[in-house]
Amino acid sequence: MKTPIRVAVTGAAGNIGYALLFRLAAGDCYGPDQPIILQLVEIPPAMKALEGVCMELSDAAFPLLHGIETADNPHDGFKGANQIFLVGARPRSKGMERADLIQANGAIFTDQGKAIEAGAADDVRAVVVGNPCNTNALICASNAKGVAAGRITAMTRLDQNRAVSQLASKTGCLATDIKRMAIWGNHSPTMYPDFYNATIKGQAVTELADEAWLQGDFVTTVAKRGAAIIEARGASSAASAASAAVDHMATLWHGTAEGDWASMAVPSRGEYGIPEGLMFSFPVTIKDGAYTIVEGVSHGEFADKKIAATRDELLKERDVVKDLL
Amino acid sequence: MKTPIRVAVTGAAGNIGYALLFRLAAGDCYGPDQPIILQLVEIPPAMKALEGVCMELSDAAFPLLHGIETADNPHDGFKGANQIFLVGARPRSKGMERADLIQANGAIFTDQGKAIEAGAADDVRAVVVGNPCNTNALICASNAKGVAAGRITAMTRLDQNRAVSQLASKTGCLATDIKRMAIWGNHSPTMYPDFYNATIKGQAVTELADEAWLQGDFVTTVAKRGAAIIEARGASSAASAASAAVDHMATLWHGTAEGDWASMAVPSRGEYGIPEGLMFSFPVTIKDGAYTIVEGVSHGEFADKKIAATRDELLKERDVVKDLL
Repeated sequence: MKTPIRVAVTGAAGNIGYALLFRLAAGDCYGPDQPIILQLVEIPPAMKALEGVCMELSDAAFPLLHGIETADNPHDGFKGANQIFLVGARPRSKGMERADLIQANGAIFTDQGKAIEAGAADDVRAVVVGNPCNTNALICASNAKGVAAGRITAMTRLDQNRAVSQLASKTGCLATDIKRMAIWGNHSPTMYPDFYNATIKGQAVTELADEAWLQGDFVTTVAKRGAAIIEARGASSAASAASAAVDHMATLWHGTAEGDWASMAVPSRGEYGIPEGLMFSFPVTIKDGAYTIVEGVSHGEFADKKIAATRDELLKERDVVKDLL
Repeated sequence: MKTPIRVAVTGAAGNIGYALLFRLAAGDCYGPDQPIILQLVEIPPAMKALEGVCMELSDAAFPLLHGIETADNPHDGFKGANQIFLVGARPRSKGMERADLIQANGAIFTDQGKAIEAGAADDVRAVVVGNPCNTNALICASNAKGVAAGRITAMTRLDQNRAVSQLASKTGCLATDIKRMAIWGNHSPTMYPDFYNATIKGQAVTELADEAWLQGDFVTTVAKRGAAIIEARGASSAASAASAAVDHMATLWHGTAEGDWASMAVPSRGEYGIPEGLMFSFPVTIKDGAYTIVEGVSHGEFADKKIAATRDELLKERDVVKDLL
């Protein structure tokens, strides 16, 4: 049995957190021989609910769960953490403008960036799940400049998985038949799910599905999937978001399969003309815990337009929080 | 890759169902090389919410999830099912007596028993999670007499896991250090968690923890854990119950470890003086998909009294539903 790793989760008593913790403790992320110690972080009013979550985690008697610690602030909660899931974020309240939301989250992620820099383990990897996740990750990383660039990423894996799900359903194949389904840009309705470079059993997606559908309903369905789930379930995506967070960190931990890509928002170093430093979702390959942005992907006119739009949205978001960077 | 198995789940859009489905689809129950097709059953008013759950399951792009089907009744939902999780049950409403609750669930489990007999696969195994689970399982099995005895069991694994959790926390050991922590009787506050025959790293529990605590707070805490979680979380146990259901079926599927036991409620054949046919939790060992009740466990006066009390409660429950058997 390996030495336990420390896995911190914010928003641990929320709906995504609740779905995530049991997947982590079951070994779904780091494998069946990797014990973990959970470091659960919540805001002070949620500490009582968090206590209940801890009771349930204990009550599952998970062989791999070697400890549970709690904290009501990230500075205590991130101490020694090797892996951090930044799930908690300020939700949009009624009448709140998007700029206000970004600002409100800015304070949270500034503090969390400082806490990562101050106390996390040397090998720390963090994923931002809480929205607006790209810009939250940008703020977080900007306030953790002592942490190597690229250690703090944001999650677009849910969008990738949703795109895979749509293609599988449309073409009657399995999720595992679909490769290189990359998400570009912001985790928002402007994102670009690049079906042109994706494959189904090695064939181009455009050979198997109608291009008008791909450019139209497919892109729209992936972009608006969150709202459709709220409409059907009466609650927002929780377990699927948690599952994507597991996939994101599992891919960073175990690597991508030969020939396949994963999508994640990482700091641009100017690839594809995306301004340096912007937290932008690209296709990446991962080996030995480090990602490499896939270079040389060719884009046509449709893609160029979509990528420009999502880039511009991210530039605007960055402008709103420029005082925090 | 193996042939997919069909896994039916009732109450699939409820809180336990929601926690359970993603664990099943992730491979936590049947292993990383066993694909599944989920057959999700809900009552008609919950079908819209179930649709949302299906969307989220698809959106997780699970490699092992080879299909999702839904039904608003068990007869359609159990067709060809190899594994069935009977999670849905009528909850106790305000002012409802326990006997009324048992009766209300009686109709549900009568119908489900018939549906299992009529349509499930030849190798079907079903676990009743919905409460009162022992008596629900008794009704279910009594209405599926063509299904071999012992194929329909009820879940006391959550109680076992809770007992393990309490012992681990008290003695500062890991859950995996504790073996043979058996639950006897009813999944209710009368159950008997048999600490006398359990071991911690091979040592008797009574050598490591105070007997007064074991007979007192330990037994009471395990019995009343559900209420304590509601008090802390503001919601009843969902993910830990789902996790125990995964453990129950995983143990039936993969077997018990050498020298260890699992707890499950199975039809008595008169073991330990428990009246024949009563759905009573015993320690069992499992090999090749079949359980064997552990014989020859010795009990002292404390245990005898506890086991008699939980047996008598189950006899009373059986009496309430005698018309359904």
